[in-house]
This record gives sequence, C-alpha cells and structure tokens, in this order.
Amino acid sequence: MIVILKKNVSQSMIDQLCGELRSRGLEIHDSNGTDAHILGLVGDTKAIAESWILAHPAVETCRRISEPYKKANRKFHPDDTVVQVGDVKIGGGNFAVMAGPCSIESPQQMELVAQRVKAAGASILRGGAFKPRTSPYSFQGLRSEGLDLLLEAAGKTGQPVVTELMNTEHLPLFEKVDMIQIGARNMQNFELLKAVGRTKTPVLLKRGLCSTLEELVMSAEYIMAEGNENVVLCERGIRTFETSMRNTLDISAIPMLKKMTHLPVIIDPSHAAGIAWMVEPLAKAAVAVGADGLMIEVHNDPAHALCDGAQSLTPDQFDNLMGDLKAQLGFFGKTLN
Amino acid sequence: MIVILKKNVSQSMIDQLCGELRSRGLEIHDSNGTDAHILGLVGDTKAIAESWILAHPAVETCRRISEPYKKANRKFHPDDTVVQVGDVKIGGGNFAVMAGPCSIESPQQMELVAQRVKAAGASILRGGAFKPRTSPYSFQGLRSEGLDLLLEAAGKTGQPVVTELMNTEHLPLFEKVDMIQIGARNMQNFELLKAVGRTKTPVLLKRGLCSTLEELVMSAEYIMAEGNENVVLCERGIRTFETSMRNTLDISAIPMLKKMTHLPVIIDPSHAAGIAWMVEPLAKAAVAVGADGLMIEVHNDPAHALCDGAQSLTPDQFDNLMGDLKAQLGFFGKTLN
Amino acid sequence: MIVILKKNVSQSMIDQLCGELRSRGLEIHDSNGTDAHILGLVGDTKAIAESWILAHPAVETCRRISEPYKKANRKFHPDDTVVQVGDVKIGGGNFAVMAGPCSIESPQQMELVAQRVKAAGASILRGGAFKPRTSPYSFQGLRSEGLDLLLEAAGKTGQPVVTELMNTEHLPLFEKVDMIQIGARNMQNFELLKAVGRTKTPVLLKRGLCSTLEELVMSAEYIMAEGNENVVLCERGIRTFETSMRNTLDISAIPMLKKMTHLPVIIDPSHAAGIAWMVEPLAKAAVAVGADGLMIEVHNDPAHALCDGAQSLTPDQFDNLMGDLKAQLGFFGKTLN
Amino acid sequence: MIVILKKNVSQSMIDQLCGELRSRGLEIHDSNGTDAHILGLVGDTKAIAESWILAHPAVETCRRISEPYKKANRKFHPDDTVVQVGDVKIGGGNFAVMAGPCSIESPQQMELVAQRVKAAGASILRGGAFKPRTSPYSFQGLRSEGLDLLLEAAGKTGQPVVTELMNTEHLPLFEKVDMIQIGARNMQNFELLKAVGRTKTPVLLKRGLCSTLEELVMSAEYIMAEGNENVVLCERGIRTFETSMRNTLDISAIPMLKKMTHLPVIIDPSHAAGIAWMVEPLAKAAVAVGADGLMIEVHNDPAHALCDGAQSLTPDQFDNLMGDLKAQLGFFGKTLN
Repeated sequence: MIVILKKNVSQSMIDQLCGELRSRGLEIHDSNGTDAHILGLVGDTKAIAESWILAHPAVETCRRISEPYKKANRKFHPDDTVVQVGDVKIGGGNFAVMAGPCSIESPQQMELVAQRVKAAGASILRGGAFKPRTSPYSFQGLRSEGLDLLLEAAGKTGQPVVTELMNTEHLPLFEKVDMIQIGARNMQNFELLKAVGRTKTPVLLKRGLCSTLEELVMSAEYIMAEGNENVVLCERGIRTFETSMRNTLDISAIPMLKKMTHLPVIIDPSHAAGIAWMVEPLAKAAVAVGADGLMIEVHNDPAHALCDGAQSLTPDQFDNLMGDLKAQLGFFGKTLN
Repeated sequence: MIVILKKNVSQSMIDQLCGELRSRGLEIHDSNGTDAHILGLVGDTKAIAESWILAHPAVETCRRISEPYKKANRKFHPDDTVVQVGDVKIGGGNFAVMAGPCSIESPQQMELVAQRVKAAGASILRGGAFKPRTSPYSFQGLRSEGLDLLLEAAGKTGQPVVTELMNTEHLPLFEKVDMIQIGARNMQNFELLKAVGRTKTPVLLKRGLCSTLEELVMSAEYIMAEGNENVVLCERGIRTFETSMRNTLDISAIPMLKKMTHLPVIIDPSHAAGIAWMVEPLAKAAVAVGADGLMIEVHNDPAHALCDGAQSLTPDQFDNLMGDLKAQLGFFGKTLN
Repeated sequence: MIVILKKNVSQSMIDQLCGELRSRGLEIHDSNGTDAHILGLVGDTKAIAESWILAHPAVETCRRISEPYKKANRKFHPDDTVVQVGDVKIGGGNFAVMAGPCSIESPQQMELVAQRVKAAGASILRGGAFKPRTSPYSFQGLRSEGLDLLLEAAGKTGQPVVTELMNTEHLPLFEKVDMIQIGARNMQNFELLKAVGRTKTPVLLKRGLCSTLEELVMSAEYIMAEGNENVVLCERGIRTFETSMRNTLDISAIPMLKKMTHLPVIIDPSHAAGIAWMVEPLAKAAVAVGADGLMIEVHNDPAHALCDGAQSLTPDQFDNLMGDLKAQLGFFGKTLN
Repeated sequence: MIVILKKNVSQSMIDQLCGELRSRGLEIHDSNGTDAHILGLVGDTKAIAESWILAHPAVETCRRISEPYKKANRKFHPDDTVVQVGDVKIGGGNFAVMAGPCSIESPQQMELVAQRVKAAGASILRGGAFKPRTSPYSFQGLRSEGLDLLLEAAGKTGQPVVTELMNTEHLPLFEKVDMIQIGARNMQNFELLKAVGRTKTPVLLKRGLCSTLEELVMSAEYIMAEGNENVVLCERGIRTFETSMRNTLDISAIPMLKKMTHLPVIIDPSHAAGIAWMVEPLAKAAVAVGADGLMIEVHNDPAHALCDGAQSLTPDQFDNLMGDLKAQLGFFGKTLN
C-alpha cells in the first residue's frame, strides 16, 4: 500500500503514524520528494482498511497495490480451479450448462422441463423455490415444497440441482441440494456468505447489480475464508443507464475475473437480457469470450410462467440453442460437461 | 396497466389473453387504432407482474400506470406519517438527528460520544454492533457485546438507539433496540424485511447503492405489508461513474420520495460523501431540500476508528455543525426533535 | 403515443388538449376507465416531443409506442444495409476489420503499420489525425499533416481509410477520406452530424459514453435525414461504476441495434477494454454475437505510442488474433471482407 | 506520479524506462521493497499521459498524485475567482440567477419573460437560439434570428444574456452575447472549447451527462489555456440508473468543485429534475450547499413551449421562488447580484 502524506505536516505527526503502522507488523519505505512525501507499506496489508489510513490527519490519500483477497487470488493459485457438482465438472476446460425454470410451479412442470433440458445437454437442473421478488404482492415461490419438487424431478433424470438460498435459517432445508445459489441481491449478505462458507456444498455466487468485480471476489473470499473453496462466480448483467435491456451484460468481466482469480466463471444471459430472443447471441458470446458455463431459464409455457416468463426459452428453443452451442464448444476446444 | 399488442396477431390469441386477464378480476378497455392496438386494464393490477404480461406471445410491451405500492402510497394516505422512536418524533415538521460512531468499539468510546452528541442536539444515538464489511479480514463489529455497550451508553443519556440488523437470526438480540436499521446492502434482503415487518419496532430503511426509488418504496411496502408501518426511509448516496466522492448523494430523492410516499425521509451525508469535510454542506442541503432528519457519524478519535474514520466528524466538528443546523432549521420552520 | 390524463381535470381542459393534438394532424382514441383516462394518438408522432405533451396541465404522463426514428428503422427497411467503403463491404454477412494506430505519428510508423495490418487481413486502415484528448496538455494529433501521412500510407497498400472529424470547419480537408469517423464525444454534436449528412462519404458513428441505443440511432437519423444513408454504428464501451476496465463493453447492444435498425454495427474492443490483453477475448465475443466488423488499435511500438499505447496490439499480436478470427468467421459463416 | 513496476522485470528494462522519464525532465525516486518496486516521478507530470506510462512493458500500474490541471487549480490560486458578465458578478459571495425560456420563440415571448424574470430578481437573461435536440425532427431553434430577439429583449431590460454556442462557425454571430454557454453535449467538443478560449467572453461550461468532475475541470482548463479565464462551471444533473427524474443532480459536485478549483459554480435545477415542481426544493438546496448561482427555465406558457415545457416555471412560480431565495440568501450571507 502506498500512503501519500499531506504537505507541511509536522514530523512528530508522521512519526506517530509510522509507529502505528509498524505496530501492525508493516515495514515502511519512506520516499520524500519535492512534490510528494510517500510511504510504501510492505507486509500483509490485507487487513488494513483504506478508510483507517485516510482518517489520519497526516494522510492526503492512499492506494492499495496488492489485492485485498488471497484465497481467491490467481497469483497464489495459478491453475484453474475445477468445481465438481455431483459428477459435473465446471472450469479448467469443462463447460457446464445449468437450465430450468425461474420458479418451480408444479411436479408436472419440473419433470417435463427436467427431461427436456437434460435431453438437450444441460447437466445441472435449476429452479427457484425461494424467490426474491421486488414486490411483496408477487409470487414468492413454493419454498420448501418447491425444493422437494426440484429434488424429485432431478432424481428421475439423475441431474444435480442448483437453487437459491435467501436466508441462513433455511440452510437445514438445503442439505440435499447439490449447489447453493447466492443471488445478486444477497451478494453482500455477509452472514449468508459465512453460513454457506461453513458447509462443503458448492456455491454459485452471482454478481450484484452494481457490484464491482473486486467486491464480487471479496464475497467469494468470505465463503472461502470459512473453509468452502467450491465457489463458481456468475456474471448476470449490471445496472446501467441503458433501458432497452433489463440489465447490461458485462462480457469483459469474464476475462478480467479469470485474471484476478482461479475460480470458474459462468454467464446468465437470461437475466442479463431479460428477453428470450436475446439469450442465443449472448450465450454464443459467452462461449467465445471464455466462460466456463451458462445458466439459462427454460419454461414449458413461458406465457404462463409465474416469474420471468419474458426471458424464458421454450424447450424447443433451448434444443436449438444447445445444438449450436455444442458445435461452437467443439470449435473452441471446450468439453460440454 | 396499458398493454400494447403486437401487430398481426390472431383474434383468437387476443381473446385468450383477455380471458386470462378477466379471470384475474380485471376489466379491459379495448382500443384498436390504425397504429396500435391497446388494452387498458382496470382493477387491482398490483399483483400482476409485468414479466408475466410480456411473456404472452400477443404482447409487444406494457406500461404500468398506477404505482405497484399501496400502503406506502401518498395517494391513499395524503398526510405525512410521523414515526416515533422512544419519545423522538420524525416527520411532519419534526426533524431528528441520529449521531454516533460507525462501529461500537469500547464502553469509554460509546459513553463519551453519546454524551457529546446528546449535548450537541442529536436525539437518537447510532452505533454499529454488527458491521457489513466488504472484506472478511476487516473488523466485523463487537456484535452482541457491542449491542450491550450501545444500550448502556444510551441508558445513561436517555437517548433511544438505532443500530443495524444483518440477519433474521439476530433478531432476538434486538429486543431493547428502539429503531432497527436495515442497511443498504440488505435493502432487498426480503426475508429480513418480512422479519422486521412482524415486529412493532420502528425501522430505518436505507436505500441500496443502485436501487431505484420505486424499489426502495417496494421494500418499505414489504415491511408495511407485514403490519409494521413505522418505516423511515434514508437516502445515503448511490453508485455512479463519479469517483471523487464515495457515493453520489441523490438529493432529488427527497422531494420525489415525499411525493410518492407519506413516510419520513432522512439523509446520511457521512456515507454519501465518505469524507468528513463534505458532511457540513450536504447536511445543510438536506435541511433546505426538505429532509426530515440526518444520520451523521461522529467519533471521538477518527484517526483510530476501526471503521469509516475518514468520514467521521469529531465531537467538536459536530458541535459546530449542529449550531449551524439549529439556526437553519429555525429559518425553515422545522422543529429539532 | 399514449397520453395518460390526470384525474379530476375539467372536460374543457381535455377538449383544449385534444383540439391542439388534432390540429397537428393526429387522430385520438379516447379510453376513459375507472382507473385512468387515456388518449391514444394515431398518426405521425415522430415530431411530437414528449416534453411538449408533459407540459400540458391535463397530462399525468405519456409513453411513446412507435419509435421516433424512421430512416434507420428496420421496420421500414427489413433487409440489412451493406455500406461500401472503397471496395470493402460492411454488413449483410460481410465482416470488415479496421486497424491502425490510435494517432498518426510519422510516415515510417504509418507505412509499417499499414503494411502489417493489411497483410494480416484488415481491409480498412485507421489512424487519428485530429485527436480528442481530455487534457489540453496532451498530444493533439498531427492534424492536417497527419491526414496526408494516412492517405499516403494507404495509397501504397491500396486500403481505404477511416479517420475522425472533430469540427465542421475541417470538413474540406477530409475530401479524400473514404470513411469519416464521428467520435464518442461528438455523437450528439448535431451540427457535425448534419454536416457529414450533407456529404456522400460513409460515416462511422461511435456511441457516446453514456448514450442510450435510441440516442445513437437518433444521431444516425440526423445524418440520414440530410441524405447520407451510409452509416455504420460502433459500440465502443459505455461508462459504468466498474473501474477495472476503461469502459464496459455493452455486447448486448449488437443484437439490440440489429433489431432496431438495418445499419451495420461493429465493435471497438480496444477502447472498450483499454487494455491490450483483453482485445482478443472481446473480439472473439464480437464475432460470436453477430457484429459486422471490428475496429482495433495496432501500433508498431506501443510503449512509445503518443496515445493509448496501453490498449494497442503489436503487429505480431494482431497477426495472431486475425488468424484466430479468420477461422472463427468461417465457423460462423461470415465473409472477411 | 507513482509508477508501480511489474515483478521480475529486468534491470535493463527499468533503466530504459527511467532514461525516458528523465529525458522528459522528471526526477525519479526509486523505492524497491520486498512487495513492490515503486518509482516516484517528481517534476511537471501534467503532460505525461497515464496511457503512455501504462504501455511500457515494465509497468504494472501508475497513479497520478498531483492534479492534471493548473490554471483552474485552487492550489495555485487560493482565492475565489469572480466572473463578471456585463455588470453582474458571479462568485466570491456574489450569487447570480440566470433565467428565461428554454428556446426563443417570438419577440412577444422574449419581452414578456425578460421583464418578468428581471422584475423577480434574475440578473442575466437566458434563451436558446441554437438548440441541441436528440431528434432531427424536433424544433432546432430560431438560430441567428433567435439571437437577435434575445439581444433585443435584453436591450430593453438592460440585462446581459447567456446563450448556447454549438459550433465554431457560429462564433461570429455571438459577438454581442455577454456569456457563451457550452452545453452538456459539447463539454468535450475540444475545438469548440479552444475557440471560445480565444475570445474574452465569459463562458458558462455545463458538465456532461457522464463526465467526471475532473473531466469538467480539464475542459475549463482547455478554455483557460487559450487565454480566457472567465469560466463559470454548471452542474445540471448526471445520468444514472434512476428513472424517476430526468437526471440525477450531483449536489456534492458543488463543494468538491470548489475544493478543486477557484472558479464559480452554479446549478441548473430545471435540467437536473426535468419537472417544474422539483425546481424549488433543488434551488433551495443549491443555495444551502454553497453554489454561486442558478440557471432556471421560465416560460410564459409552458404548455405551449416548443422545448422543455415540462420543466419550465411560469413567471408567477418564478416570482414566488425568488421571494423565498432572497430570504434564504440573506440567511446564508450571500449577495443576490
């Protein structure tokens, strides 16, 4: 970390700051030029908050040089992490497709969709039981009953499942769930992150609507710091000024996250676009840019879906898309897993 | 709600859509022009999700006309709501200042700050016991022990307290807390909103970093729909492209929220600016624009604060600010409460 | 256009509004429900500004249904437009790569880069003569002398050139330029748009840093309304809260623009990323998502570039990228032109 | 400027970089720690582009410490600049109100509005002759004829005028204009900035919709570097994700700009809000936060305005507002000028 001192501060104030920094185990490189007086802090600055440094009266500003994350950092773990969900591998050349309805509505719906997405090549079944909805008057999901329907449908097709956890108190209900999703709105629900960090279940961590990539990685670090290193990151669109799409897919996040971290990174084009016809081109862009997988909403009858029908593919549309993606994955040398 | 139909859709498809809409209790005004075929839906459209309408194959687009919130809506409740915290009134001409340290650190700190902010005119004591931090390696708050210190300090000065709740499982610890804060990162933690909605404790609901005003009001509606109508909204800065401040204070949110809703609205200039020297001008703007209160971070020794020192005022700075604000409140005809 | 009236306005006020609307040639469909009183305006609403409607005291709000653009609108021109620059075709299955240095620096530099990018497969030579720089103290380009160097280098390789015009007064200097670039900062410099609209030279119109897609198309409409229909749109990254990249590439803009308009759309991954190593994955995503071309910065010696060196590829890096892209274009059935 | 080197780069590469930096007149402080190797550059780094440093293969990243602007910098000019427009002073405790219609429409309109705003206390008359409109089909202003009407109306009331210049070729028409406005869309039209910099006419420089404060000050620096130091900055709302207002007023920009620069700073609440009823609270916030003036749209008949009627005050509404503002300016110790 670099600390830039204010001009004309007394030496005693600087000495006092340096004393505090040294007492936290840091070594100090002092560089006093005509333009600026700079302290270079050497050592483990991970736990030093910038706001703490900035509050000192001698400090003009400070800049972090080394990343504030460690377990997720590719510098300390150069190889790609491969996360295993059931017998499905994600990362390190393995490409996985998670598909299913936005919300679980009935046994018939789940079974039909499970069979169709499995047949089309999706290895992991998704479905929402607990639904985060903007309005208290919207359908809130079938909750624990929905979880049962999801597991039942997946049991018949032999797919592992991924579904969203919204509250630590629901964790006991998720024991048989193969992969726990932390949704965009809970990306900085730190108590929830710690709770899933104490399990061994793989976690799909979605980026918040206005979270920076560094914040996303720091949230992964919360999970990993508790002992669970099975984290898959998911870009699902960010909020910008543009209104013609539901969200703006930040496609550059994929190569940037892969530089920052060794964790697998997937894309959710359904939420990014919010419109079914746009899922196809975005899914193809995801493969080309180097993502490790996709999460796609598929519904047997989008016009009657209780949630997000406008962005759901029909099983037939999903079949066509998967046909194209299989060829494209072959071209790019990835294994559909 | 206005539904705009696609061109050249079959009458049978339109009939099918109208049948479904009528089965949900809506009346339909059909207006078929040369340019556009429009359905006007009349009735309670609050529970009709736009995504459900948009998923229908006959629909081009749709627009909500009436607001999707009811209990928070000023149209159905024209008078200002006055929320009472202990014996402090907020709203309806009553202006309240909440002040205290970002995080509770020690009995000495809390007592000193409590006495100083009380003497300066702050009626409610704030202090963080459970701290949402971006990094798992940053100080996470004294947690339940911190709550005790806060209540103890407030007991000596006779102030009510406000402090942040991060997880439903901690709710039993908050029994003696006078006002529960829901932080920006949890504004759409819907399970948490429902849980505080089932209490009678006043709630301070902070706007999320990239939440629209309508989303903020919908989150208030979650709390109110469960039975707790004691909600105070708080604008604390949004995330934009500008990097010279920590966040961008959306000052227009105050008049707009007051038009949308009857709930009191306060401003947190400390988090908005992220810099202590900017708290003063923003606090003055808050009074002038018509806010019902302020939340301000005050620390006895900002340079050694465990959290957010850079944006904390010293007790002396807070004294000066309150002196100015008292005169300004007098000028604007507000009562400091 | 749909006009939603306020409740409880007098009939005479409504009659007065309807009279004005009819006097502008619009037909009115009146739909008065219990919840809302709505006027549907039928006719040519392109020249009706929403702000004019909103200013009427009887009006609550209004919504445009039909797009405010006509010449660029795919609805009235379903086939892809193919823009021809020299003998290079862009659009309708023809993929074109424009490459060259950010700024033109010397004859040697331009000749070397021109030969290398031509050999690698770029059909159009780019180079900046007039440079829009944030700081008045940064290199402002070689200006008219730079234009001569660009045309000279292109003359030797037989490539058409594209270069940025910043001011209407410079237009006479651009007579031999094959394609005029309107930069992101001038996307709403309407006098400049009109001026290039009065030429027959193909125009590369870059999206502004915070311009919506509709605004981009409206700027194309300015050019087309003056008579020049040879417009190519370019997505080059938008400004968001994310700071790890220079800009956020809005990849969804490609399919959305292609739905809105019949004009070709290309991507500039160099400006979007601002980092040379990220150009490759973004360029591949551009092909997969359906773009009609790429604009890429190539410099013989990025470390000594007078502008944007950090995002420039070396000729060798560009060779490798073009090798990959040729195979990928073949896979996707596009013709490199 | 601080340059952070990559790990494991050869000494010869570092020596080569240092040689280049020294050849540009910079002194280098070399600080090689175990964690990071840092070069501190001392001297005039204003003309050193970060992108140039970042392009060097030995460089990891770099950070500017001193501001890239000089003439606008408060550090080198601690006293407030007072800009004089006609005999109206702006800045240094002098508060000026500019008011008038969005667009000039007729002699009658301009005379009526000029008399009313003058009587209410506005010292400068505004009115748009050349209008930047998103759509080519919207009213583009009366252009040079409008300028004549504006000057004529102001001649009768004795007010100086401010009006927008959109193109360098129109400059000869602006000879009698007292203050030239550079609009938000042209904030980075650098040729236009240079052109007004070569005049002596005071300039009102509006912040771009997504321009950072540093970029705004750099655009002022363009004007000042050409010799014209009579620049007034104007915050008029930025573009964010929030859709309930036209733009988001960045009120914090006022104190921040006043820290960065010695130039006067005013607020345009009409464009920020886009809604007439919100002008009043925002204008009051502007006074409280320390702005040096206001620009407000006033129209004799907003419902028939050719541009921006929805955000225009009537003369009566403006009277009331000015009454309130006069009292508030007295309270805050400012002189209405």
